[in-house]
Amino acid sequence: MRTAFQDQLDGLTQMLSEMCGLAGVAMERATQALLQADLVTAEQVITDHDHLVDLRTQAEEAAFVLLALQAPVASDLRLVVGSIQNVADSERMGGLALHVAKIARRRHPGHAVPEEVDGYFAEMGRIAVELSNCAQEVVLSGDPQRAAQISRDDDAMDHLHKHLFTVLMDKEWHHGVASAVDITLLGRFYERFADHAVEIGRRVIFQVTGQTPEL
Amino acid sequence: MRTAFQDQLDGLTQMLSEMCGLAGVAMERATQALLQADLVTAEQVITDHDHLVDLRTQAEEAAFVLLALQAPVASDLRLVVGSIQNVADSERMGGLALHVAKIARRRHPGHAVPEEVDGYFAEMGRIAVELSNCAQEVVLSGDPQRAAQISRDDDAMDHLHKHLFTVLMDKEWHHGVASAVDITLLGRFYERFADHAVEIGRRVIFQVTGQTPEL
Repeated sequence: MRTAFQDQLDGLTQMLSEMCGLAGVAMERATQALLQADLVTAEQVITDHDHLVDLRTQAEEAAFVLLALQAPVASDLRLVVGSIQNVADSERMGGLALHVAKIARRRHPGHAVPEEVDGYFAEMGRIAVELSNCAQEVVLSGDPQRAAQISRDDDAMDHLHKHLFTVLMDKEWHHGVASAVDITLLGRFYERFADHAVEIGRRVIFQVTGQTPEL
Repeated sequence: MRTAFQDQLDGLTQMLSEMCGLAGVAMERATQALLQADLVTAEQVITDHDHLVDLRTQAEEAAFVLLALQAPVASDLRLVVGSIQNVADSERMGGLALHVAKIARRRHPGHAVPEEVDGYFAEMGRIAVELSNCAQEVVLSGDPQRAAQISRDDDAMDHLHKHLFTVLMDKEWHHGVASAVDITLLGRFYERFADHAVEIGRRVIFQVTGQTPEL
């Protein structure tokens, strides 16, 4: 028979999974706003972020109540503590998508990203969405193999990010300093988004196997 | 009479306080390495970071044991959960100091920061150290007035950071794109360092007063 405790724990996991999904939607839209100089979509990402912040508060409160009333131990406790940490990472992922959207809004009706590097951001956006979808899935399934996939996708993100910098640093860069500043920040936002997904994946692996995966 | 629980809770708080202090030392040295193109100090910051990572693991483990064996409730539980979150912020602060040190190392024997903007980084470094010292103090004292000071110092950091960007974007900037990229990242590292200190201050206020301060 399912206990009230189990239901509450599932509720917390569902909330966390939803947050990962919302962060992915935010980054998908922010990338669209960025590449198409789409102000309406940028505004939507900015407005929607409040919901993710609310969900974080709710999830933290749910975890607190669980700890206070149920005093879980062992693997259940690990799951609750891990959820508190994962909730912070997923909210931050949404915050980074928000930053991307704000740069798109600031440069509108211009494009923040010169056509020359459009491809990098399209691909970094695609990987970011994949990472958050993967995180959304593994917090529910607890599948350590699938969680390990997040780190591999993050390698692809790091590779793109490094390559983007070589393009910026190239003497042929003729889009000026202001554009380079935007691109630097944007690259950093995508890279950090991926890092937070990696953290979530690593915690799921630890919760399930008791082992912290190598970096 | 003091209980074993109280001793364990104090031990956790001490560890967190030490982590805030170490993050401040790291940022002080990283700033010195940056401004003086001081490779030895940069290397020291990079090496020392491992200790902060170890402390995070130890603190998380201590918090976990506390929750498992003592099942604290109410304000004690809030303190333990808040410590888990603060430990993550303080480790991240050290990670940002590490990034500053890595940029100093990458540009050595050159200076990553042109003399023209040296003053900004000297001042941002000074504020960062003040913020971490303040965080170190308030996690021990629980003084909400002093914790509120962190947000005010962060306003000064944000102001400097914004001003730094106007210097970068100015048509008179003649240090090239590569330098602008470094400065953009460095500015972001100092700003984020401050943000994490603010988070710690806000949690201390919440733990003590039960109220979340306005942003």
